Amino acid sequence: MSQNNQTAQRALSETAEVDNASIQPFPKSEKIYVAGSRTDLRVPMREISLAETPTDFGGESNPPVRVYDTSGPYTDPATPVDVRQGLAELRAAWIAERDDTEALEGMNSAFTRARLADPSLAHLRFNHQRTPRRAKAGKNVSQMHYARQGIITPEMEYIAIRENMALTQAREQGILDKQHKGIDFGADIPDEITPEFVRSEVARGRAIIPANINHPELEPMIIGRNFLVKINGNIGNSAVTSSIEEEVEKLTWGTRWGADTIMDLSTGKNIHETREWIIRNSHVPIGTVPIYQALEKVDGVAEDLTWEIFRDTLIEQAEQGVDYFTIHAGVLLRYVPLTAKRVTGIVSRGGSIMAKWCLAHHKENFLYTHFEDICEIMKAYDVSFSLGDGLRPGSVADANDEAQFGELETLGELTKLAWKHDVQCMIEGPGHVPMHMIKENMDKQIECCDEAPFYTLGPLTTDIAPGYDHITSGIGAAMIGWYGCAMLCYVTPKEHLGLPNKDDVKEGIITYKIAAHAADLAKGHPGAQLRDDALSKARFEFRWEDQFNLGLDPDTARAYHDETLPKDSAKVAHFCSMCGPKFCSMKISQEVRDYAAENGLGLSEDGEEVIRMIDVEAEMQAKAQEFRESGAELYHKV
Amino acid sequence: MSQNNQTAQRALSETAEVDNASIQPFPKSEKIYVAGSRTDLRVPMREISLAETPTDFGGESNPPVRVYDTSGPYTDPATPVDVRQGLAELRAAWIAERDDTEALEGMNSAFTRARLADPSLAHLRFNHQRTPRRAKAGKNVSQMHYARQGIITPEMEYIAIRENMALTQAREQGILDKQHKGIDFGADIPDEITPEFVRSEVARGRAIIPANINHPELEPMIIGRNFLVKINGNIGNSAVTSSIEEEVEKLTWGTRWGADTIMDLSTGKNIHETREWIIRNSHVPIGTVPIYQALEKVDGVAEDLTWEIFRDTLIEQAEQGVDYFTIHAGVLLRYVPLTAKRVTGIVSRGGSIMAKWCLAHHKENFLYTHFEDICEIMKAYDVSFSLGDGLRPGSVADANDEAQFGELETLGELTKLAWKHDVQCMIEGPGHVPMHMIKENMDKQIECCDEAPFYTLGPLTTDIAPGYDHITSGIGAAMIGWYGCAMLCYVTPKEHLGLPNKDDVKEGIITYKIAAHAADLAKGHPGAQLRDDALSKARFEFRWEDQFNLGLDPDTARAYHDETLPKDSAKVAHFCSMCGPKFCSMKISQEVRDYAAENGLGLSEDGEEVIRMIDVEAEMQAKAQEFRESGAELYHKV
Repeated sequence: MSQNNQTAQRALSETAEVDNASIQPFPKSEKIYVAGSRTDLRVPMREISLAETPTDFGGESNPPVRVYDTSGPYTDPATPVDVRQGLAELRAAWIAERDDTEALEGMNSAFTRARLADPSLAHLRFNHQRTPRRAKAGKNVSQMHYARQGIITPEMEYIAIRENMALTQAREQGILDKQHKGIDFGADIPDEITPEFVRSEVARGRAIIPANINHPELEPMIIGRNFLVKINGNIGNSAVTSSIEEEVEKLTWGTRWGADTIMDLSTGKNIHETREWIIRNSHVPIGTVPIYQALEKVDGVAEDLTWEIFRDTLIEQAEQGVDYFTIHAGVLLRYVPLTAKRVTGIVSRGGSIMAKWCLAHHKENFLYTHFEDICEIMKAYDVSFSLGDGLRPGSVADANDEAQFGELETLGELTKLAWKHDVQCMIEGPGHVPMHMIKENMDKQIECCDEAPFYTLGPLTTDIAPGYDHITSGIGAAMIGWYGCAMLCYVTPKEHLGLPNKDDVKEGIITYKIAAHAADLAKGHPGAQLRDDALSKARFEFRWEDQFNLGLDPDTARAYHDETLPKDSAKVAHFCSMCGPKFCSMKISQEVRDYAAENGLGLSEDGEEVIRMIDVEAEMQAKAQEFRESGAELYHKV
Repeated sequence: MSQNNQTAQRALSETAEVDNASIQPFPKSEKIYVAGSRTDLRVPMREISLAETPTDFGGESNPPVRVYDTSGPYTDPATPVDVRQGLAELRAAWIAERDDTEALEGMNSAFTRARLADPSLAHLRFNHQRTPRRAKAGKNVSQMHYARQGIITPEMEYIAIRENMALTQAREQGILDKQHKGIDFGADIPDEITPEFVRSEVARGRAIIPANINHPELEPMIIGRNFLVKINGNIGNSAVTSSIEEEVEKLTWGTRWGADTIMDLSTGKNIHETREWIIRNSHVPIGTVPIYQALEKVDGVAEDLTWEIFRDTLIEQAEQGVDYFTIHAGVLLRYVPLTAKRVTGIVSRGGSIMAKWCLAHHKENFLYTHFEDICEIMKAYDVSFSLGDGLRPGSVADANDEAQFGELETLGELTKLAWKHDVQCMIEGPGHVPMHMIKENMDKQIECCDEAPFYTLGPLTTDIAPGYDHITSGIGAAMIGWYGCAMLCYVTPKEHLGLPNKDDVKEGIITYKIAAHAADLAKGHPGAQLRDDALSKARFEFRWEDQFNLGLDPDTARAYHDETLPKDSAKVAHFCSMCGPKFCSMKISQEVRDYAAENGLGLSEDGEEVIRMIDVEAEMQAKAQEFRESGAELYHKV
């Protein structure tokens, strides 16, 4: 960037502002906190209050619905956010108490020190430099390590309360048994998510808690097949200064709509500074692909990459607080030629970089040969592995081939190695896979990686819809989530075509919230159906506002409704624009219901009885007469 | 409508114009016709021509790709369309030749006669009144009847050529064996779709050809589990005059993007005239729900419905040329009270109308008691049944309940009755169903209805996303299509909220084309993968224009790409905005491929050999040296 640009530019630390759209409260929603066993353990939830049922539908009151809240402090009016200050460090005390970490004298990354010493970067820098911590000599500070010691950390308790929310409500409302029993393909979902269950899953390696000790701003969350299915949103990529503010905006916008984690995939010039702004303002785990930055450090010449440069990059990012690293350690030399036969070769950036390095040096992938060195770094900061699938298929034609499955077997081997070091680990998956080949991916991953969490991109179920790959992949994502995938990486409408803007980010996030929730319902996750039932009841009772507010995107639902029926009166209308006032199945259904209730029909849970009663001709003739006399005009005027 | 409006209004027959957006040719596409055994049997297809592979990717030429074309004469520059004249009657000769129908003296529907006699409707009327035909006394003119006589009709041959298109191309290109083997859940998809196979499937009742003898403009298509999965788009509903033109516009727009059939769900004042305009301008089968119009005829008072009014409506619509009728004959009196326990009661309009009628009269559903009378009408015009699921679940909570499955059993019984009369029949399905309960629907439908085609709405896999129900349902649609569903009824983003506009229609259609194609791939439909492979090859080779043009929506793909890289030069750029020029996995893959080719690696289909060769350390060290020397700068400048 030219000198002019820099001077022209006022420091971000003076100008950066929070995205206004990201801090708007959700309609009829209140940010609540459920207290844990200690005063500094408060689990945020969004509580949506509902209107009473109209009298002609029974007039009862409807309990508020609590929904899993990924939007963080940004939607809490009580804690205003200043992106120049960053978020409060809610885990700081928990980390300090464990007394197994120490504040660093200086930065251990040469690159970090160089960036901090460069005055030309002053205007980009996040001002409130915190002192990073690392494990004391010989200590392992990973949640997995604690779990294996039998320790239940505050993070684990926090997660138990968060994951147990829907179940608790369903219990309170006595409707837990009303939910459909799911099909879970051998998952081990308990009746209740206890802190001890969280601990045991993390110890077993079946779930991870991405939570770098240098990211104390984090609201703990868990990724594992026996918990709610999570989704990731990708941001980053721009290379110009102004983009730092844009990337923070995408972070707050993406988490507002439901991103459980965010990956910063920036490949531009100021990756380091951008990342600092993102982490300091992020309440969700941040993942990165360190090889991208390492490549920048060698001016994009893959052959020039070295273990030393990569190692310094890992430390640089670990000390900033990155919670999980995508590491393409499974791209082995012998797998590379297997991709030559493919329709789309290697489509993973990290995978292709390592493939090129392997061929150029004819050496084995240094991420593989140095894997245990990497583990040593991970456990000193509690960074989790996200083992990258560098050979994932980039087309339906290449799905489930020997290159992909060969790498997967190697990732399984590396998983055991990470576990040997008590380092948390999840595995990345495809890619482009037709529907009938998706389950084989899930089953093979479970077999190779011993139930370590699977984290997939889609998969896309067809290649023929550029511009709609959030949908081609949303189909595959919902299915693999049902089969046991723990986290779904979103795909936006711009996939294959360009960089997502804010609208694309939202479209991708909502699509993936749908996929993840559909998977939770299919797995029979306890309480998952509560929100569906509440929304459908509101829909049946013409509580339009409640229907909008219980939806994933109240703004869009309201806007669509208003296109045809803008008047407020329509919000209480007992009809909609699809059928109009004198032609409404919902109304007729209510009449059927009232009628049945009056006449003791359909009240018992036993269909048989109902059928017997209604078949008593004589009685029914009378009822029919009654109905005719009472029911001439049955439609409500508004 | 007031007298003023009418006089103010110039006749549609003078003013109506075809939607300009619907007649634009698709980029790099040519409308071609494949000739059958007779000169008047010409099957339209869209042929997309492709660019040569860039020299650095091998420089070979790429054969054009033919895609199934539902857009009709509207995209054929050689046959300009005038919606005031209607389409050419390409089936007229075929129908006449069979010599089993006769032109009617006058209309058999009292309602039709009344409408024709009403001068105040003149300005709405389609001018070119054709003389309707019906079967000669005692004749059955259904395609099923012909099939059971062993007759292969021109319609059947037309369909065989159309359905066999992808297979033929895959054979010609010698890539048929390269396609993934599918999982078909007991479908009976042959290696080749022959006219005889089409006949046998129709005779068996496992497929239908909706083709009213009064709709000679129709381009024959087939609906059955052993054929390509089809999709339906719904139009209609507006009540104002101007909407007639809008509805014709939605017809041409919807079929342009891929609707295989269109249902006209109009419930307004001028249903009769609207329908005439739609059918005369439709090259795809038109379906309706006659009870909607019957209800209009009794001013919306369900109790006042009678068999006589309904019967006249069936004849009215059959003589206009409607190809399939949704008939809610399975809503039996004894099932109605079972819906009282539901979260969302009865959500089908037709179902709720019949339920109300049944209760008011305490009589059995007259559509059920008169079912064989209906069959007599159907076979006189070859109208197909679409047996309506009036009790389909309107929420996840109500999925697969006793009301829904009770009705399904009755629909199975009615299917056999329709078949007794050689009347074609498909069965409608849900609705709202979580993923793990979808297959039970398909399996039970196959069991109850002996493989008669299943035609489902979605199903929606969750209730929590109003505004995105094209996606919640697209997931379920893809899955049930894979399991054996023959046709998928689209859902637009406006579902539950309002009336779809043109954009919503397109969004819904594209989403359902994705679902249908994903299902074809998963079933392993022969040749289905051809388009995916061609597009992915174009993507890998940076043939941007080809990637756009092979997609379901070239316009949107191009627009998204141009948002970040608008220049034409970018259309030939060997990189995209996601990774930028010096950071492209595709390029690196090509290097790997070239490298492997040069060194005889990865050329054999046998992975083992490849691995052995690359493990010869000494040789490889030399290769690596070579590669380094040759490969310093590997990225292409543009």
